[in-house]
Amino acid sequence: MFARNVVHTGYRVGDIDRSVRFYEKFGFSVHVRMPMGDAAQNKIGEVVFMALAGDGPRLELQQVFAETRPDPGTARSHIGITIDDMQGAVDALARDGIVPESPPFRPVKDGATICFFRDPDGHLVELLAGLEL
Amino acid sequence: MFARNVVHTGYRVGDIDRSVRFYEKFGFSVHVRMPMGDAAQNKIGEVVFMALAGDGPRLELQQVFAETRPDPGTARSHIGITIDDMQGAVDALARDGIVPESPPFRPVKDGATICFFRDPDGHLVELLAGLEL
Repeated sequence: MFARNVVHTGYRVGDIDRSVRFYEKFGFSVHVRMPMGDAAQNKIGEVVFMALAGDGPRLELQQVFAETRPDPGTARSHIGITIDDMQGAVDALARDGIVPESPPFRPVKDGATICFFRDPDGHLVELLAGLEL
Repeated sequence: MFARNVVHTGYRVGDIDRSVRFYEKFGFSVHVRMPMGDAAQNKIGEVVFMALAGDGPRLELQQVFAETRPDPGTARSHIGITIDDMQGAVDALARDGIVPESPPFRPVKDGATICFFRDPDGHLVELLAGLEL
């Protein structure tokens, strides 16, 4: 059992600046931006790691210059983010033109209220309020 | 800036028991298993949260009964996991029949050594040794 920590979630994106602007609306800021290399250390793209205040650089965005339309498929890959106030978050995002995939709901009786949003490439962001895991 | 923490990464999978066995090889164990509900709280599948020892339940696997082949697409969604010893990890996984997508490499000069593996549905798992982010 050799693994220590899950440190980030990574996604390919079609326009890294567009994605940075999107995730900034959720409270992320850029932790580091660097060239992306292949096994031969040729520069093939750019990488940005983003972090919420007080959290680690848990979101990695990669843009590979040769790829313009990464397809997120149908597997609903997502990051889950805790928040205190679901309605406040939904309202704040709506003011930035970011609307949820469907209204907030509670999939487990007396469990967390959740809500999904799609990023500019179709990756999902889940907000969770009242999570007790 | 309303978000607090990135608490998990979630993936749809085609066979949740198969996925649990796969991630156990990386050191994850089941934190909780529960029914998955829709907005009307109908049971539509199962959810398992898995954690590495000493880490939170950062991996969510979902199997929706009506979906048998979630497609991970081409966006290379992945979780990044820190390890101490890359070659030891690659060797241990090989003994379990899990082989990397390509040999470990160092995309940034003097940076972390990384290696990608595909889970049974095609989602990527990245191992990182020497990460200093």
